[in-house]
Amino acid sequence: MVETGENRQNAVILFSGGLDSTTVLAIATAKGYQCNCISFLYGQQHDVEVQKARASAARMGVYRHLVLNIELDKIGGSALTGDIPLPMGRSFDEMKSSIPSSYVPARNSIFLSYAVSWAEVIGARDIFIGVNVMDYSGYPDCRPEYLSSFEKTANLGTKAGVEGGRSFNIHAPLLYLTKKEIILKGVSLGVDYAETHSCYSPDEAGRACGKCDSCLLRLKGFSEAGVNDPVEYQ
Amino acid sequence: MVETGENRQNAVILFSGGLDSTTVLAIATAKGYQCNCISFLYGQQHDVEVQKARASAARMGVYRHLVLNIELDKIGGSALTGDIPLPMGRSFDEMKSSIPSSYVPARNSIFLSYAVSWAEVIGARDIFIGVNVMDYSGYPDCRPEYLSSFEKTANLGTKAGVEGGRSFNIHAPLLYLTKKEIILKGVSLGVDYAETHSCYSPDEAGRACGKCDSCLLRLKGFSEAGVNDPVEYQ
Repeated sequence: MVETGENRQNAVILFSGGLDSTTVLAIATAKGYQCNCISFLYGQQHDVEVQKARASAARMGVYRHLVLNIELDKIGGSALTGDIPLPMGRSFDEMKSSIPSSYVPARNSIFLSYAVSWAEVIGARDIFIGVNVMDYSGYPDCRPEYLSSFEKTANLGTKAGVEGGRSFNIHAPLLYLTKKEIILKGVSLGVDYAETHSCYSPDEAGRACGKCDSCLLRLKGFSEAGVNDPVEYQ
Repeated sequence: MVETGENRQNAVILFSGGLDSTTVLAIATAKGYQCNCISFLYGQQHDVEVQKARASAARMGVYRHLVLNIELDKIGGSALTGDIPLPMGRSFDEMKSSIPSSYVPARNSIFLSYAVSWAEVIGARDIFIGVNVMDYSGYPDCRPEYLSSFEKTANLGTKAGVEGGRSFNIHAPLLYLTKKEIILKGVSLGVDYAETHSCYSPDEAGRACGKCDSCLLRLKGFSEAGVNDPVEYQ
């Protein structure tokens, strides 16, 4: 159990400002952790998500929010950083059939490594990530066997891991939830999804396209949950 | 065996511009790889090393050189990014007795994750890193068990790793060499150590302090190798 009150344990939350990670933040908060969010400007075309992340982090009372500019666009190789076309208007079967062009090479290893680094500095041992294998099985770095191997590596490669005491734990509370279940969980915890951003291809006003994989999965999730999606679409 | 000539295999070299990684670059080049170096501006106080890295990479004829600014100083927790005092004037026994303040939390996980990301984009499967357990046993992320676990994680978390074909290999050719042996290896391969930088605390002209752990280990290595250290000290 996590302590509450003055002696709350620090946790680091990988926080994009999207539907999933905002739900994860609500879950970690509800568990009693003192939440430290980390977000990345990595050259994503939809960097409006980080503006949303800043607003949500402040509103949800996080303890610290660290935003890092990490230049993944100089590496490229992903539709999210503008190198190749985004998948649009695909069926859910197509989404499940192969690794999509929105895959960013080794992104979760990079994000989780930063999270471990910061966790070590602030004395946190719990790291939360909003990955999920249900709707979108294409990303190799969302699989449970990957997460488990990363956790082991993190403990082998850090001072915290070798000097004894509690080891790092990678928590992925959404891993086996459908988008519908994630939304219902968030609603039960009071998440305001109006302040989340999912679209890979927003217009200049930040409005969602409604056609990219991320929008389609989001809309399907809200529809199946019987909840109105409060964000604005183009 | 690595092919030579027109069809050389790409390798990614983690390249700080220091003595170790410059030797590693020479080793990978001698093995016939087409070398792609990656260097990081991470808020290190001795960022003169990256200037040296640029010059050495050009002189050694590398295929590509990518320099990323990755803001690790916003995380802190290390003497290298200026948060805590650097170790100075220590004995070699002291250096071996504990993890030094120059340890940067999870640095090799971050560096290696970027290397894997780039390797995936440019079609490389071989990643070279100049870590070493002999002189400086204090860094947890230089241990063979860490490197082996990282390699497994990288293969689980990438498109390249799950779609079959050759997996990622993390090469650490200096792992069991002393500094003396590293220098003799480099000399035999024609490395110009005048263009390498090791010092954690250089003056404004980039001259080495001669007192930090890194300088002391370097000087001891050159002394034991019977080779003159060509860099300028303050």
